[in-house]
Amino acid sequence: MVDKTHPKLDERIEPGNWTDGLDMPMSLMDQIPEDPASLADLANRSVVSGKQFSREQAIQLCRLAAKFETTQTMGQFPLTGKILISAFYEPSTRTRLSFESVWHRLGGDVISITDPSTTGVAKGESLHDVAEMMSHYGDVVVLRDSNEEAIYEMLDVLRIPIINAGNGTDEHPTQALADIYAIAKWRPEFLMDNPPADKKIRICVIGVPGRMRTVRSLLSFLALFSPAIKEVVIICNADQPFSKGQKEELEEAGLKLRVTADLDAQLPDTDVVYINAIAWVGDSYEELGTEYRLNDSSPLKDGSIILHPLARGEELATDLDNTEHNWYFAQARGAVYVRMAIMTSLVRF
Amino acid sequence: MVDKTHPKLDERIEPGNWTDGLDMPMSLMDQIPEDPASLADLANRSVVSGKQFSREQAIQLCRLAAKFETTQTMGQFPLTGKILISAFYEPSTRTRLSFESVWHRLGGDVISITDPSTTGVAKGESLHDVAEMMSHYGDVVVLRDSNEEAIYEMLDVLRIPIINAGNGTDEHPTQALADIYAIAKWRPEFLMDNPPADKKIRICVIGVPGRMRTVRSLLSFLALFSPAIKEVVIICNADQPFSKGQKEELEEAGLKLRVTADLDAQLPDTDVVYINAIAWVGDSYEELGTEYRLNDSSPLKDGSIILHPLARGEELATDLDNTEHNWYFAQARGAVYVRMAIMTSLVRF
Amino acid sequence: MVDKTHPKLDERIEPGNWTDGLDMPMSLMDQIPEDPASLADLANRSVVSGKQFSREQAIQLCRLAAKFETTQTMGQFPLTGKILISAFYEPSTRTRLSFESVWHRLGGDVISITDPSTTGVAKGESLHDVAEMMSHYGDVVVLRDSNEEAIYEMLDVLRIPIINAGNGTDEHPTQALADIYAIAKWRPEFLMDNPPADKKIRICVIGVPGRMRTVRSLLSFLALFSPAIKEVVIICNADQPFSKGQKEELEEAGLKLRVTADLDAQLPDTDVVYINAIAWVGDSYEELGTEYRLNDSSPLKDGSIILHPLARGEELATDLDNTEHNWYFAQARGAVYVRMAIMTSLVRF
Repeated sequence: MVDKTHPKLDERIEPGNWTDGLDMPMSLMDQIPEDPASLADLANRSVVSGKQFSREQAIQLCRLAAKFETTQTMGQFPLTGKILISAFYEPSTRTRLSFESVWHRLGGDVISITDPSTTGVAKGESLHDVAEMMSHYGDVVVLRDSNEEAIYEMLDVLRIPIINAGNGTDEHPTQALADIYAIAKWRPEFLMDNPPADKKIRICVIGVPGRMRTVRSLLSFLALFSPAIKEVVIICNADQPFSKGQKEELEEAGLKLRVTADLDAQLPDTDVVYINAIAWVGDSYEELGTEYRLNDSSPLKDGSIILHPLARGEELATDLDNTEHNWYFAQARGAVYVRMAIMTSLVRF
Repeated sequence: MVDKTHPKLDERIEPGNWTDGLDMPMSLMDQIPEDPASLADLANRSVVSGKQFSREQAIQLCRLAAKFETTQTMGQFPLTGKILISAFYEPSTRTRLSFESVWHRLGGDVISITDPSTTGVAKGESLHDVAEMMSHYGDVVVLRDSNEEAIYEMLDVLRIPIINAGNGTDEHPTQALADIYAIAKWRPEFLMDNPPADKKIRICVIGVPGRMRTVRSLLSFLALFSPAIKEVVIICNADQPFSKGQKEELEEAGLKLRVTADLDAQLPDTDVVYINAIAWVGDSYEELGTEYRLNDSSPLKDGSIILHPLARGEELATDLDNTEHNWYFAQARGAVYVRMAIMTSLVRF
Repeated sequence: MVDKTHPKLDERIEPGNWTDGLDMPMSLMDQIPEDPASLADLANRSVVSGKQFSREQAIQLCRLAAKFETTQTMGQFPLTGKILISAFYEPSTRTRLSFESVWHRLGGDVISITDPSTTGVAKGESLHDVAEMMSHYGDVVVLRDSNEEAIYEMLDVLRIPIINAGNGTDEHPTQALADIYAIAKWRPEFLMDNPPADKKIRICVIGVPGRMRTVRSLLSFLALFSPAIKEVVIICNADQPFSKGQKEELEEAGLKLRVTADLDAQLPDTDVVYINAIAWVGDSYEELGTEYRLNDSSPLKDGSIILHPLARGEELATDLDNTEHNWYFAQARGAVYVRMAIMTSLVRF
């Protein structure tokens, strides 16, 4: 028998219950001057890699995201009559629903591919022909594909913008921008050219930069904000954490990188801990770094925050959910607004 | 070769062909005074169990459903900009399309989960994390899950209302309210505090109350309308038709219950026959009571009606479709308007 | 490592890049006088077979399609508040997305069935009951089903229009109308009662008319335009290319038909080549005529065009994509506008 008493059933859900933290995006907006010109340059472009973005674009996208986050009710629907093609050739619920929700909140409509086995591609249709078709049917494509080259093949012929929602082990740029936005909400000085020395941060990234798309894209964005970063510490025990040239490129962009296998030794001096245990490989995934776990007993620095792109497994204990370190839920919430900022910048008339 | 002559191909479909019976919802509206206060109390609440509703709420939801049923064309779209998360972890087409259609008719947008095998839950994500995610992506969740506890787990953390569209063998409250609405359209006195003695009805329910969610929820609602019910006769040959405490609770609420295995002996004195042969169990279903069948030769009372939540199997013969007893199509039609009534009561601004 | 340089990433996509050929639909509109009366007769009708359409209706649908194709931005959304039930019991991405895109562009909402295995039909529900349900949930049904009789069964009880998006090996009328529109854009004289002798065309159809639904529907439409057609040459090596009575019926309607197995011998004198290698049979498909291939070395007549309903396999080489013969991409683009013309003609208020 089901116990049908649940406190939530006698409770009215008031929006006020969950808008804690609106002061943070508010403060972000106050501290960053608006600069529409840098976003105008994104109009009708595709979003494939974290490397495409300039520092100013990333900052202005965070500012625009904050603007959306502090807008309770949309007074207009800028994407009315526009169609998103939500093409998830690698199954996903979280990311797919995120993009579809964002598009709808902006007033647009969505057509979806959720089951790759029923598509023409499964029957041998070329990606060029698929891209040709999509150019007729929609205004933007969001693509997730376990083949990292697929998005580049589609770019050859697409006549509408495409957004990379994860291409194999390569990149996932909109997720990474959501990570940046989460850090910026917590500490707006992160976006400054000359942040005060006591506001510079140490970031631990648990994961393998050469094999995890979320980590690869995140590092590209972090490189834009080197002035605010003391050091990025990669926590992993892989022999070759980086792909060819990756480390050199990041260091050239100004990022201080260090690799270590010992997580707990770093935590007391770390301001931002980024953790993620799943790396997609082909149609399946491998878990990397399952020996690294965070829980309420981890020696976390006071005031430090944890980020996780979710969904989480056992690497991140739920006993952290109600602590000050839980910034991953704010990060997930922010991802919606970051994608609203990207979408409205891309689609112009 | 296909025979391509079909009378429908030479026929224009006129709305007038299928609005028979609008006088019934009209009459329902005339007989029930409007009481917006009782529905205001549903704002921003979840709908999990038939037991949550007061008699007055059930009556007013029927009245509001009648109002929608008699409105040919919506002049406004109250859910514009609102997003429904249609989460069917147990596959369903009829119920899913019903909710999605309703939400669209009210002006809202929908994001859907139709294939549970591609979700994070299948990969081990907790329902708490799923609910956290959904709170960011939508305004209402409709959930069907073969695990009856799932909806209660999601309630723990959800910050938007959730509607139970079937949780295992437990409940399916919106279907049950559609059953009540079907009875009320046929006989508005059913909703009265003191119906005339000759308008009181005997109801036969073919099914197992302890193992069928539609039956369980229906009985909860029927208990609210005991003044209009002579008796509810449960037709089944199960040893233990009720779950623990179920019978006692219903009788305490005023319902007269009797169990018998002989359907045909009851029919000549029965006003409403409710039949349903499928009980969902886990990922599959079992057929209960397949020995009970209704057809045009069944000794049905003149003027009596048959209800069935559909889809039907062999328990309900199609030779009844064109008889006065066919109230199951009107019931299916009414389910749309009942869900419109529920949705607009839940979502306030 | 992914090579992240791609010329498209530095390029803004301007609508002007891909509106080549707008002069053709413009010219089509100029040459055909508008005749709303013939389309008014389509209101609230179902579209099941190519044989349903009169010559004047086909012409006016092409004209209306041209009107949509030359309208850059819709100023109004005629299907606001209307719901399309997109029911693909035989999996399809291209056709499904096409219809869903069209419906959205016209302002309507869509509810979809993409996975037949989860439906009531899979559990034994009758098509009559499904049609009864759909009449409550939507305003138009688009059906693809590998059972060619399914759409006729649904017609028995549906109270909303249904559109055949492919029924087994039988018909696919909206695709065929898109083929006609593609020819008419290329040569508007095709639609004339008395085209000049030098504008009459020879058409090669590579395929088996008796077993391919796209071919069957196309031939029905071509029969309406016999005055502009010198000859239709069927290229196939099947013993019985036609189904019973098919050839006789087409010839009676005025079409000159010839069958030959030698493609290359025909090409130098052919104005329109229609090629399609896939025939759906049950849940799977067979490839027909894989020995017939078109590529840049085929002896194609100067100025002749190739049509293909897509998705393509090896029968149509990509080295033709950048030649004057590639009319299949224009055809695919036009299919969107043809379906907009059909939808707006069907749904009236």
